[in-house]
Amino acid sequence: MTGKTEKIPGGVTAAKGFMAAGVAAGVKYQNRKDMAMVYSQAPCTAAGVFTSNVVKAAPVIWDKEIISGEQTVHAVVVNSGIANACTGELGYGYCRETADAAAASLHVPVDSVLVASTGVIGMQLPMDKIRAGVCMLAEAKSDTQQAGDDAACAIMTTDTISKQTAVTVQIGGKTVTIGGMCKGSGMIHPNMCTMLGFLTTDVCMTKELLQDALRRTVQDTFNMVSVDGDTSTNDTLLLLANGQAGNPVISEPGEDYEHFCQALHEINETLAKMMAGDGEGATALFEAKVVHAASKEDARMLAKSVICSSLTKAAIFGHDANWGRILCALGYSGALFDPERMELYFESRAGKMLIYRDGQAVDYSEEEATKLLSEPEVTVIADMKMGEEAASAWGCDLSYEYVKINADYRS
Amino acid sequence: MTGKTEKIPGGVTAAKGFMAAGVAAGVKYQNRKDMAMVYSQAPCTAAGVFTSNVVKAAPVIWDKEIISGEQTVHAVVVNSGIANACTGELGYGYCRETADAAAASLHVPVDSVLVASTGVIGMQLPMDKIRAGVCMLAEAKSDTQQAGDDAACAIMTTDTISKQTAVTVQIGGKTVTIGGMCKGSGMIHPNMCTMLGFLTTDVCMTKELLQDALRRTVQDTFNMVSVDGDTSTNDTLLLLANGQAGNPVISEPGEDYEHFCQALHEINETLAKMMAGDGEGATALFEAKVVHAASKEDARMLAKSVICSSLTKAAIFGHDANWGRILCALGYSGALFDPERMELYFESRAGKMLIYRDGQAVDYSEEEATKLLSEPEVTVIADMKMGEEAASAWGCDLSYEYVKINADYRS
Repeated sequence: MTGKTEKIPGGVTAAKGFMAAGVAAGVKYQNRKDMAMVYSQAPCTAAGVFTSNVVKAAPVIWDKEIISGEQTVHAVVVNSGIANACTGELGYGYCRETADAAAASLHVPVDSVLVASTGVIGMQLPMDKIRAGVCMLAEAKSDTQQAGDDAACAIMTTDTISKQTAVTVQIGGKTVTIGGMCKGSGMIHPNMCTMLGFLTTDVCMTKELLQDALRRTVQDTFNMVSVDGDTSTNDTLLLLANGQAGNPVISEPGEDYEHFCQALHEINETLAKMMAGDGEGATALFEAKVVHAASKEDARMLAKSVICSSLTKAAIFGHDANWGRILCALGYSGALFDPERMELYFESRAGKMLIYRDGQAVDYSEEEATKLLSEPEVTVIADMKMGEEAASAWGCDLSYEYVKINADYRS
Repeated sequence: MTGKTEKIPGGVTAAKGFMAAGVAAGVKYQNRKDMAMVYSQAPCTAAGVFTSNVVKAAPVIWDKEIISGEQTVHAVVVNSGIANACTGELGYGYCRETADAAAASLHVPVDSVLVASTGVIGMQLPMDKIRAGVCMLAEAKSDTQQAGDDAACAIMTTDTISKQTAVTVQIGGKTVTIGGMCKGSGMIHPNMCTMLGFLTTDVCMTKELLQDALRRTVQDTFNMVSVDGDTSTNDTLLLLANGQAGNPVISEPGEDYEHFCQALHEINETLAKMMAGDGEGATALFEAKVVHAASKEDARMLAKSVICSSLTKAAIFGHDANWGRILCALGYSGALFDPERMELYFESRAGKMLIYRDGQAVDYSEEEATKLLSEPEVTVIADMKMGEEAASAWGCDLSYEYVKINADYRS
């Protein structure tokens, strides 16, 4: 029983003691929800990972300060439409004003409020709308599944589906729940984390271990996703833990910690794949699975290189078994291997096919390959025959729609 | 007079003693020229730079062996349509057979014949057609400008225009000529060199310096181009020097050597820009010019990061002054800088505009910016205010056409 994870319905309100809300504040989009809140009355231990981009959006700077301190956290306020990036001192001041407004509405300290923004870079937030939105959110917040749905919808930009998931895991005789939501469709090439992701859990755990668990699970989940190779200025993944599950506090590595990490990995992988499959303009989720690589680092580089290749992505869009482009992308990944020894397979719901072995293509049927590649989830498996390490990366195909979305995103 | 370069008409046949040809051999394409030859009766010193991809096409392996040896070179045979990459031992054998056929037709040693291929990866060459093509090429070769044009057309794949250029430079009282042609439109992200480029010169120079000059000028020209971030398996740039200009042999660094490098840089920059502007599906040549960077390496990384950003490229296609994406791309380039201090400008034939300063956008006119960005050549200038180093990189916009070309390239 202990350590067993189980998928359950819901998202950020699944864990005990968490409330959420999503409202239409008219920040930039019209007639849709565009502000979200996550709230816990019980103070939370908080962990976070943030963009590695030198250009960091104001909310990233605000959140990093709070996460690196010792104080507890009560709420996260998010807006979509405007990213509050490249907005100078004024933009940073707006983070404080947003947190101030939330602190007043929720009767919590200002430095217990995290903020996040996503959308157009370079535009200033309309603070009157943001302040009004915060009041509406504080009013509307609830612990229902519907409230989690509303929040997940409110943080979307070019996303076509909202993304949330939840699991339970048995720890120390108690049921611990982790729930999460994320958004991300364009400018997705997380490095240290995703666009925006918010995870809540009722686990009882020290801050140090919580941060460690987040960092560790992000490496093989969100950091292995790419839609277009552009690492955003706003990437933020937050994890709030309010201790309401009542498990014995996890204060050192061990079995309990491993079980939590496993459940967290499951949440992060699910959300990461949802994000990749909903990449801007995507018609398919494209997975690269590298096995028998010489090292973990090599496996990651190889897998990521394949899902980042524009040519490969365009071929997947065309259901074209253009394996030469995959070999090419493996070749410039930075990892060493022997092209004469490795093997390449395509896999989807329609089956699995060997494509390449002994330095050249096998005699496969193009027709069958095209059929296999016409499924909504497509995997290429590269067997490097070098060692024992493996990694997966997730991306999507490159379509006309991607160009369309990004040629006039601002208009 | 000494060291003065002058642009002249022509390409690979511009330099004294070089002949060329282009014929339709039906390798894969129908009803168009698809095989080319460059030939010098006088033996040539040869230099070359090749792809850094771990997966190297058979012709790359063949050429590297010859270039690394001491023997002189007489000819290069090129085919388009099939890349002879990922073709195993058989493919490598076909390189030798091609060189054998040329050696027999031209009465030169087999190891004085370089070969190059470009096109689909993984397909074997139809050797009967290649052999017949070599005979036609040997027959047709001539030192006319038309022959150079024919060769430049024959090496094209998805290129929409042929690419050649030539300059003269005064060295040691003699007129030295350098001419060149190249091809490349997709899978363009050269690292150590371009897709395929062939340069001829009548300069008299030692092999060591020739190789040095090529490597040095490639760094700021071909290596600063990207169409889609995919480093090809076939990248090859060859430089043949037959010494027919009669200048005193250049055997050590000095004024003569510098003048030659300067002329070679001019040739390489012209060809590199032609390649970027003719990127698959491109409607505009997109240049990123980085000035006042802290180091040369930083300048190159920053410039290349901007022209590689899919989001920025899509914005250029839409004539959208989405400077936030440019700042974002600078931010994840790997170079450190202060976003609050730097400045951003757009420039084209229509004028020059300041867009961003002091950490935020200036009050520019979107209408004027769109007008400026509607020109066929568009430059973004990033003034980093960090030091004295500069670099330029060249790419193109990302259009529907790019996706179309690459979704069904093989069909």
